[in-house]
Amino acid sequence: MKIVIVGAGRIAWHLGKRLKSKGLPVSQVISRTAEHAEALAEVLQAQWSDSPAEILPDADWVILAVKDDAIAEVAESFAPYAQEALVTHTSGGTAGAILARHFSRYGVFYPLQSFSLEHTPVWSKIPFCVDAAKQEDLFELKKIAKIIGNLVYQVDDEQRALLHVAAVFANNFANRCFAIAEKILDEKDLPFELLHPLMEETLAKALQDSPERMQTGPAMRGDLDTVKRHLALLQNNPDWQDIYRIMSENINPSLK
Amino acid sequence: MKIVIVGAGRIAWHLGKRLKSKGLPVSQVISRTAEHAEALAEVLQAQWSDSPAEILPDADWVILAVKDDAIAEVAESFAPYAQEALVTHTSGGTAGAILARHFSRYGVFYPLQSFSLEHTPVWSKIPFCVDAAKQEDLFELKKIAKIIGNLVYQVDDEQRALLHVAAVFANNFANRCFAIAEKILDEKDLPFELLHPLMEETLAKALQDSPERMQTGPAMRGDLDTVKRHLALLQNNPDWQDIYRIMSENINPSLK
Repeated sequence: MKIVIVGAGRIAWHLGKRLKSKGLPVSQVISRTAEHAEALAEVLQAQWSDSPAEILPDADWVILAVKDDAIAEVAESFAPYAQEALVTHTSGGTAGAILARHFSRYGVFYPLQSFSLEHTPVWSKIPFCVDAAKQEDLFELKKIAKIIGNLVYQVDDEQRALLHVAAVFANNFANRCFAIAEKILDEKDLPFELLHPLMEETLAKALQDSPERMQTGPAMRGDLDTVKRHLALLQNNPDWQDIYRIMSENINPSLK
Repeated sequence: MKIVIVGAGRIAWHLGKRLKSKGLPVSQVISRTAEHAEALAEVLQAQWSDSPAEILPDADWVILAVKDDAIAEVAESFAPYAQEALVTHTSGGTAGAILARHFSRYGVFYPLQSFSLEHTPVWSKIPFCVDAAKQEDLFELKKIAKIIGNLVYQVDDEQRALLHVAAVFANNFANRCFAIAEKILDEKDLPFELLHPLMEETLAKALQDSPERMQTGPAMRGDLDTVKRHLALLQNNPDWQDIYRIMSENINPSLK
């Protein structure tokens, strides 16, 4: 199987190395920036190019590991040269159907994790969300995901769209709650470390059981006095007050 | 040192057992519910009573381990019988000054963690927030907190009030974000486990570095198309839309 990776960013690096270590070597790396293509190709012992026209003519699987807003354009640039190949992107935020205009064999191969260059991913803990237009391609993608990962889910475009929204709540917004807590403490010269054990406990419980059932706190208890006192304490920051109010009302609609 | 615990709930149990195991045995347990007092006293090999009037006359330290909204009333009930003792409560949400009306030696001995009966607390990871009206009592409380815990902070009433608000963000509201993510997935028959690795990664980063600096996501990137698409996907739940909007604007004020 001839694998071509398009892109040389974080996912391309991690995925390329993982595929290679599992006996699925990447044959070619293509990136608009020649140096990036060359650097990753050297690590993967692959060929490289900075032009879609130079893609290996017998490529079996083309992995578009590029930014969300570049997928459509990059796909178009490969359309004339990869008509036989299975073409997939690695994005959670983009429909697989975006590739349908250019390819008959298309799909999605989305590792649901945030990758950073400093950390080696724990592949056994990364869920792969895969999808494909054709049954045999889906079968193949699932097989590969099982080899390089562990948890494999078939997720269609509609599900993936909502999965992406859910990830924003579980990651971006939860992190924002941590950041606001950090700033509140900072104003009173209290170290954020004070809250670390509580945050670990909160996560441990949310992973063990349903977070819905694990909910605690003044809003949950309907402790209106405390809610009012907290809102008064946040009076210098109307944004935080709004967030406090809206989250509390969502936890306990009777506070509305 | 004669220690009296008032209350027989989760904190009383965990704290009592920890004190005992560290060579600071509790001499007496007092609870309005005689059976509760007796059950904990048996474990701690202590005396027990259901009446404040029966408190040991030579009690050195009275720990009020009762619910926030019961502290004032319970403190009053002990006032005639514990004038010589150091009296502390264990609450994060209540000022130490609430005890000032009844006692000259008062303070706070607050383990910042959510306790449950099923789990043995990891004491080495629990920050103790202590405070006292008198220097010598403060010194003593810090010493004890160091013996049974690890991290000890002196936190005054004003700081503790904001610490409590911060804890609501870091615990209750972060957990609510997890719960909303769970419900979004549930509607599309996707397992919540899909997001577990991402949640673990988010927390690991927030503990390693400042969550403010670790912020990622469409709002942070100013990716307005994705934000709009996500809001449209949430159209059946105006509450979640409001939360999505307000959190995104707080992450990136230019989205306002």
